[in-house]
Amino acid sequence: MRLLPHLACWRRVPSGMGDGIKPRADSATGAPPTMVWTGEALALLDQRLVPERVEYLSLRDHSSIAMAIRDMAVRGAPAIGCAAAFGLALAVRSAANQSDVDWGRAIDRASAELLSARPTAVNLRWAIERVRRVCETEGREAATAAALREAERMLAEDREINRRIGDHGADLLPDPCTILTHCNAGALATAGYGTALGVIRSLHRAGKLYRVYVDETRPRLQGARLTAWELLQENIQVTILPDGAAAWLMKNRRVDCVVVGADRIAANGDTANKVGTYGLAITAQAHDVPLYVAAPISTFDWRTPTGSEIPIEERDPDEVTHVMGARIAPDGVSVWNPSFDVTPKRLITAFITEHGVYEPTAEDLLRLRGISEER
Amino acid sequence: MRLLPHLACWRRVPSGMGDGIKPRADSATGAPPTMVWTGEALALLDQRLVPERVEYLSLRDHSSIAMAIRDMAVRGAPAIGCAAAFGLALAVRSAANQSDVDWGRAIDRASAELLSARPTAVNLRWAIERVRRVCETEGREAATAAALREAERMLAEDREINRRIGDHGADLLPDPCTILTHCNAGALATAGYGTALGVIRSLHRAGKLYRVYVDETRPRLQGARLTAWELLQENIQVTILPDGAAAWLMKNRRVDCVVVGADRIAANGDTANKVGTYGLAITAQAHDVPLYVAAPISTFDWRTPTGSEIPIEERDPDEVTHVMGARIAPDGVSVWNPSFDVTPKRLITAFITEHGVYEPTAEDLLRLRGISEER
Repeated sequence: MRLLPHLACWRRVPSGMGDGIKPRADSATGAPPTMVWTGEALALLDQRLVPERVEYLSLRDHSSIAMAIRDMAVRGAPAIGCAAAFGLALAVRSAANQSDVDWGRAIDRASAELLSARPTAVNLRWAIERVRRVCETEGREAATAAALREAERMLAEDREINRRIGDHGADLLPDPCTILTHCNAGALATAGYGTALGVIRSLHRAGKLYRVYVDETRPRLQGARLTAWELLQENIQVTILPDGAAAWLMKNRRVDCVVVGADRIAANGDTANKVGTYGLAITAQAHDVPLYVAAPISTFDWRTPTGSEIPIEERDPDEVTHVMGARIAPDGVSVWNPSFDVTPKRLITAFITEHGVYEPTAEDLLRLRGISEER
Repeated sequence: MRLLPHLACWRRVPSGMGDGIKPRADSATGAPPTMVWTGEALALLDQRLVPERVEYLSLRDHSSIAMAIRDMAVRGAPAIGCAAAFGLALAVRSAANQSDVDWGRAIDRASAELLSARPTAVNLRWAIERVRRVCETEGREAATAAALREAERMLAEDREINRRIGDHGADLLPDPCTILTHCNAGALATAGYGTALGVIRSLHRAGKLYRVYVDETRPRLQGARLTAWELLQENIQVTILPDGAAAWLMKNRRVDCVVVGADRIAANGDTANKVGTYGLAITAQAHDVPLYVAAPISTFDWRTPTGSEIPIEERDPDEVTHVMGARIAPDGVSVWNPSFDVTPKRLITAFITEHGVYEPTAEDLLRLRGISEER
């Protein structure tokens, strides 16, 4: 049984797996949390339905979580990482309970299934490796409890990391500050608070935020749907615009900086993020607007030398030809639907991380790598 | 009675004014014509419904035509010009039939109503001035027939002009040629054949066309809806992409040139076109991809010195917050929805006109202005 049928046309099929779960709003953001571990299952906010409905999926095995990642019920590199950690922990628990199962092979298979759910976000691999390390250290007996603890720790850590990213960003940026962002690098893309939206939240709390613009971010409209919804929950005013209008915005209105998240940052600083970021970076440079990438160091992939080696997912044409279940393009048309693009480091002003602000220079990246490897 | 109620949410309200009119397909393109004069009314293809339905509005007075222009049942600078010419001719006829009406004032009022329908496309003003000149020359008695003849002449001329634009473009561009275009500068945006899509048609006929990409062109999706549909009618293969993916396309696939239409070209060469063109021009330059503007000389506005003086229409937020009648963004969000942007002349490689190819230099523009003023 496929618990989460692939949405040939996203949002057409309601999930109906929620068991009526209603987690409490996040005390820091006032918004429903991205995910909550109930002790038995992962309650995951179904982001395909936001802002129309706030519903939670109740996921009890790694395959359901892999499917939720693939179908983008959960998205955003840090959130994908956390969900995958719970996915693997659930696989560890399930394998431990079945005496006839080769425990190690079951974990390998579950890891592979989760890893293949989406290819670009490196946090997915990072999270799975972290849970696997715990299992290896603890052994079969203690691994289930330890893996679940590790996943819960990663969720808590990610919230704290984002808080620090936000505060470093708020220190860096001017007062008053008008920000343009793309897609959703918010509480919904993470365990809470957000990376790019974490910077916006911290600016807002510091009284330095003047205005937020967000590209609607086709095809899946994470800007218009998720970022707008998330910021409005906290009474942060936000203006959405068509992706194609961003260059004209920079030409005509004051934009102090562009702040975006990241799905994977190569060792040289080249950054994969939601498609549209690369064009935004080119136009930002043309208007002398600095572009910042807000991301935890778990998004840096030291094993990938440059952006050219980052795998870029191409998704279903239906994401482009249909909106909310309605067809917008004629039958028979071809579609090109890359989910991400790569912004070369020369177009990035700096990275805002939980350890401070780093420029995409060899020296700064070496320092960051050092911190990353110490942990 | 408002015959065409303002579509607070475009395409939600069917027009239901068609009288079952079914004009014959255009012999040159195989597609249903943009508009046909029936002898009594203007049969206008309702482009809000394409590609879902092919339906014609039957418009019998200038107010209905002004409303069709405002609601974008007809769009594209040359097509707006032709529709407005028929609108004014209908006003001339109506005023002539009412003996108690001040004929001159009635024409002034109708002209003003049509002119205010959309502010950016200069062809609207150009077309109205042409019909008014005929009325002044002919006088009240002969004006009705003469105005309708003039509108029909403009429709026929526009088709011929586009054929010539297309052929000049096909001579100019490489073999084989991969083109990226934006929005719909096609048969649907003109009396037939198209400007940017006229170039694509002529390339196709010359056997030089390799591939066409088109941005979906939010918010109203003229690329995904109209350009894709129009080219598929003629069996020209076309690939649509989200607007934000255009820069990544230029980075990853061969794109020989960008060809777009125009809504108004200032005397110095700065060009207003569908929002997104400016960003596309910046990214084209960053990838050494030439950008051509295909437009008739009626789109050049010699009275507007530079792009800064071109009025840019901002349209209803609902165009962004709703797609096909479904809400995509949360209640309470602000929207910025400029319909056009201005590409500075320095980002334009050349203009492809019915009189040949001109660069945006002072000398070339002077030559073009000379031709324009001779006519």
